[in-house]
Amino acid sequence: MNAEPWTALEFEARLRAVPEAHYHHRHPFNLRMHRGELSPEEIRRWILNRFHYQRNIPIKDALILAKLETPELRRIWIRRIQDHDGRRAGEGGIERWLRLGEAAGLDRKVLLSGEGVLPGVRFAVEGYVNLCRLGTPLEAVAASLTELFAPDLMRTRIDAFERHYTWLDPAGLQYFRSRISQGRQDSGEALGLVIEWARGRADQERALAALSRKCDVLWALLDAVDQAS
Amino acid sequence: MNAEPWTALEFEARLRAVPEAHYHHRHPFNLRMHRGELSPEEIRRWILNRFHYQRNIPIKDALILAKLETPELRRIWIRRIQDHDGRRAGEGGIERWLRLGEAAGLDRKVLLSGEGVLPGVRFAVEGYVNLCRLGTPLEAVAASLTELFAPDLMRTRIDAFERHYTWLDPAGLQYFRSRISQGRQDSGEALGLVIEWARGRADQERALAALSRKCDVLWALLDAVDQAS
Repeated sequence: MNAEPWTALEFEARLRAVPEAHYHHRHPFNLRMHRGELSPEEIRRWILNRFHYQRNIPIKDALILAKLETPELRRIWIRRIQDHDGRRAGEGGIERWLRLGEAAGLDRKVLLSGEGVLPGVRFAVEGYVNLCRLGTPLEAVAASLTELFAPDLMRTRIDAFERHYTWLDPAGLQYFRSRISQGRQDSGEALGLVIEWARGRADQERALAALSRKCDVLWALLDAVDQAS
Repeated sequence: MNAEPWTALEFEARLRAVPEAHYHHRHPFNLRMHRGELSPEEIRRWILNRFHYQRNIPIKDALILAKLETPELRRIWIRRIQDHDGRRAGEGGIERWLRLGEAAGLDRKVLLSGEGVLPGVRFAVEGYVNLCRLGTPLEAVAASLTELFAPDLMRTRIDAFERHYTWLDPAGLQYFRSRISQGRQDSGEALGLVIEWARGRADQERALAALSRKCDVLWALLDAVDQAS
């Protein structure tokens, strides 16, 4: 049977419900982080492993870019790559994450070497990159919608770090600060595209499945970090 | 047997020899174009079919971008995508090609529809995009080195159009003008990367093969356009 498509309003509510239920803000490791219960070693392990995810973001975004068929759409998406790579040396989200690592006592050479990245983290990140490589543009863009929840998570995280992890230089938190406004712009644009593109019920369900799969990626990443503790 | 790698100087000379021998500047259709022998209908057919190639350039460049592992390298390559897509609406190489079409009497809606693009042109362009999708970064970047010859070709073409095709508004030639300096910068950067990356003889030979294959793409495109005349 062919189900009727949801209205834009209902579809958006269903999209928002996915990360509400299982975005990594609910993961036990994240809850412990925000309650201030992680040791410096656990914080460093998380920063180092999450860096593997961070450095792959421009790669998955370039794969999405290659699926967008018009200059108009690509102009929207290319900004994400520039936000992470920086418009010039010493700028951008990847550089800011390296500085977070340095603030936590991790040499950037160690982060850049990839040494110590857990196999479970590698598989989860590979799963995300491949979703963007092999999926439809709709699925790849829908997967990015975890960013709907990122700004709130970033704010909570900044508070938690400033309160509980005072051994870490607060200048290192700049990554989280910049993601508040970037995440808001990114998710607003992506949500508009997903609602516009997913006209039939089957497409809407595929978008929800892709977003759910992306939540799995972030969750599995924290699982791997958590289990290594 | 493992052959010795060529020196950088000899490798560069061999790279330059590939398009020297069979870049599309030698194709009969291009020679007729530059001698002023093409009918308006043939010029329009070429513009329309070549547009299919043009609109796929940012896509192949995004696929290359996704293979580059550092922000430094991606910052170099991302400029190509911006050059073609424009930094804002109404700019960029694709827009300039649409204006070339308009100057030749082709509605941009026709160009954008893809109607009339010859199967041989589609296959050639698909071959190029897939070379960039499936090849190594070295092969994909080496394939771009036809741009070593583009600035000279562009200059010859502007002269030919201004002299022979006066029915075409010369304002439409802006695409060719902009590619003179862009092509010089692009090919200079790409040549540096290819020489740096191809350290062994096997890699050097793979780079030459990729560049030769790219010449095949451009040649096959003109074959298809020529045969439709």
